[in-house]
Amino acid sequence: MSLNDWLTAAAQQRERHGLVRSLKPRDIDSDLLDLAGNDYLGLVRDARVTAAASSAAVAWGAGAGASRLVTGTLAVHSELEAALSALTGQPAALVHSTGYHANLSAVTALADADTLLISDAHIHASLVDACRLSRGTVQVVAHNDIDAVEQALSQRTQSRAMVLVESIYSVLGDRAPLPELAALCERFDAILLVDEAHGIGVAGGGRGLVHELDLAERDDIVVTMTLSKALGSQGGAVLGSPAVIDHLVNRARPFIYDTGLAPAATAAATEAIRIVQTEPARVERVNTVAAELAEAAGVEPVAGAVLSVPMAGPHEALAAQAEAARLGVRVGCFRPPSVPDGISRLRITATAGLDDEQLATACKVIQSVTQ
Amino acid sequence: MSLNDWLTAAAQQRERHGLVRSLKPRDIDSDLLDLAGNDYLGLVRDARVTAAASSAAVAWGAGAGASRLVTGTLAVHSELEAALSALTGQPAALVHSTGYHANLSAVTALADADTLLISDAHIHASLVDACRLSRGTVQVVAHNDIDAVEQALSQRTQSRAMVLVESIYSVLGDRAPLPELAALCERFDAILLVDEAHGIGVAGGGRGLVHELDLAERDDIVVTMTLSKALGSQGGAVLGSPAVIDHLVNRARPFIYDTGLAPAATAAATEAIRIVQTEPARVERVNTVAAELAEAAGVEPVAGAVLSVPMAGPHEALAAQAEAARLGVRVGCFRPPSVPDGISRLRITATAGLDDEQLATACKVIQSVTQ
Ligand SMILES: Cc1ncc(COP(=O)(O)O)c(C=O)c1O
Ligand SMILES: Cc1ncc(COP(=O)(O)O)c(C=O)c1O
Repeated sequence: MSLNDWLTAAAQQRERHGLVRSLKPRDIDSDLLDLAGNDYLGLVRDARVTAAASSAAVAWGAGAGASRLVTGTLAVHSELEAALSALTGQPAALVHSTGYHANLSAVTALADADTLLISDAHIHASLVDACRLSRGTVQVVAHNDIDAVEQALSQRTQSRAMVLVESIYSVLGDRAPLPELAALCERFDAILLVDEAHGIGVAGGGRGLVHELDLAERDDIVVTMTLSKALGSQGGAVLGSPAVIDHLVNRARPFIYDTGLAPAATAAATEAIRIVQTEPARVERVNTVAAELAEAAGVEPVAGAVLSVPMAGPHEALAAQAEAARLGVRVGCFRPPSVPDGISRLRITATAGLDDEQLATACKVIQSVTQ
Repeated sequence: MSLNDWLTAAAQQRERHGLVRSLKPRDIDSDLLDLAGNDYLGLVRDARVTAAASSAAVAWGAGAGASRLVTGTLAVHSELEAALSALTGQPAALVHSTGYHANLSAVTALADADTLLISDAHIHASLVDACRLSRGTVQVVAHNDIDAVEQALSQRTQSRAMVLVESIYSVLGDRAPLPELAALCERFDAILLVDEAHGIGVAGGGRGLVHELDLAERDDIVVTMTLSKALGSQGGAVLGSPAVIDHLVNRARPFIYDTGLAPAATAAATEAIRIVQTEPARVERVNTVAAELAEAAGVEPVAGAVLSVPMAGPHEALAAQAEAARLGVRVGCFRPPSVPDGISRLRITATAGLDDEQLATACKVIQSVTQ
């Protein structure tokens, strides 16, 4: 079949199912309150963060110029890695050019053909792809189902295993049962891989859930994260023992064969970490905002900044999103097949960037479109 | 087996085989001439490019704040996509956050379970991973072997096929037989995917080999590229027909589930394209530098900026690299298992950033360590 015929057929199918997506540039001066993005701490446009990005670009260049192992490792990368270690309490860190890369690296380098990958049904697309790319055997277990994880671990025929979860899930916003999972992994000699994309900067005083639960120095727990959400920049990182990081440097193809993270993004993330560490009120604020928005939406309080509000159906969800926009608030809308559980919903994210007046407006609007 | 035991065994094995890699930060004020990176046009630290990065960070923020389909598409992305289209002569473009992502997206979204992926033996790790991640069947053919491609296409049992090549190969620096491959793909109704990572900015007057060969508007040819080499920034792009781009927006997971490229990197690449288009002398310069370095190294002239100089063995290659550094020139050194053909070599990259005096020094050093 010719490419054009195949593409036309696929486009027609999307059309028929009402699933056409298209890119709409966001206006920089939009009056809408943005509760759809992931700028949890309001740092994307913080003057200190953008100044750090700006000076690094001028001092170091617009790009890293080469892959990290050739000549693309700069002092800014080492500084960010030290800052990430300090923030998360992890012994070592390795910066990647996206959070997606960090997940691909960690999973493909740490799992081999003799590894069972036990993957929570709700994990992010990057971890799903990482599992597929790895040489291990993948077993998907029901969301947050500890018993299913235990069964998979105990009945495995592989000598190694890795359990993959998110500390705070990206769509539903709920948390993984980390203490129980950590205990199971210890008992069954398995790696626990925790994606803290939505935990860092928000949960555990900004240091993430793994740190809050005193699991940061466990050798068998590997953390991945992104620099593109609470830290307001771009990039990702893997955190763990020095032996894990060393192994990735030597074996992780999505790290080795990729140009180093641009200096601007690198320095911006370092400055964002400094702000997280020195301004606890900002981390408290996002949690307050999340609590008030949750109340307005009539859902349970959450550990992170992501609120998920189930709606009656896809049409209701779309209508609520449109109505919120008309009233000045941008929220996310997730419908099948982009939801892990088939339930259409609004995804509303809290940000410390809202002042009291904006928060009051946001709560009023959210309440009116969801209740 | 515990993670630590497994990591220790892997580290010992690396040690035994003399294959330990480690990260060494590059000094910003190094006196070494850098012929190891991919800054082919000397634009990484060009004041106009870094100023564009810097202003975009201040105006738009340090990150895009969300994935492209949520609220992470900004005017800077649309501008870069228009500039990329104009530069390459391709009808449409889609910016990704790395060149690696661009390859993963293009291959996984355009191949289905009924697709035979015919992959040149020398393609980049990102394309190898893309093939593995896709649902298609992968067949590796010998490097630049047109007959093998024809055989694979004609004998396939799948109704669809994709041939994957690089216009200019990243390690050997040689070019793919694009006209012959394009003719074959047309005849056998296959997609030709050309990674122009090392072609854009250097070959075809900076517009790449696909454009030079008048193949830019062929609907069945899809081009991928990176913004991190000649364009001096970070990021990647897929270029092709509007139908291809539309399909990726709807189906490519490494595009959909990834935060948009940071504004600084985006704007830097747009400015770099403007420079490529308005300063043909810069593109000529990298080609002159490549020709002189090739002569000094005693190898055939190349179409791009990448020179590959075979050495007697891994020790000789390492010794030559060390001697070049002692004499003031940084070159790359590739040994098994990082070379596609098992031959240890120096990888020397030309850059328009060298002035005549630096070029003379570089040639003298290269000649003395390779001949
Ligand atoms: C849980 C999770 N992991 C990983 C990623 C990928 O991070 P990045 O956008 O930096 O590639 C995301 C979001 O994009 C995410 O939500
Ligand atoms: C041929 C080729 N394709 C893709 C890439 C990946 O590009 P990036 O470094 O932007 O991820 C590279 C180099 O890194 C490359 O050499």
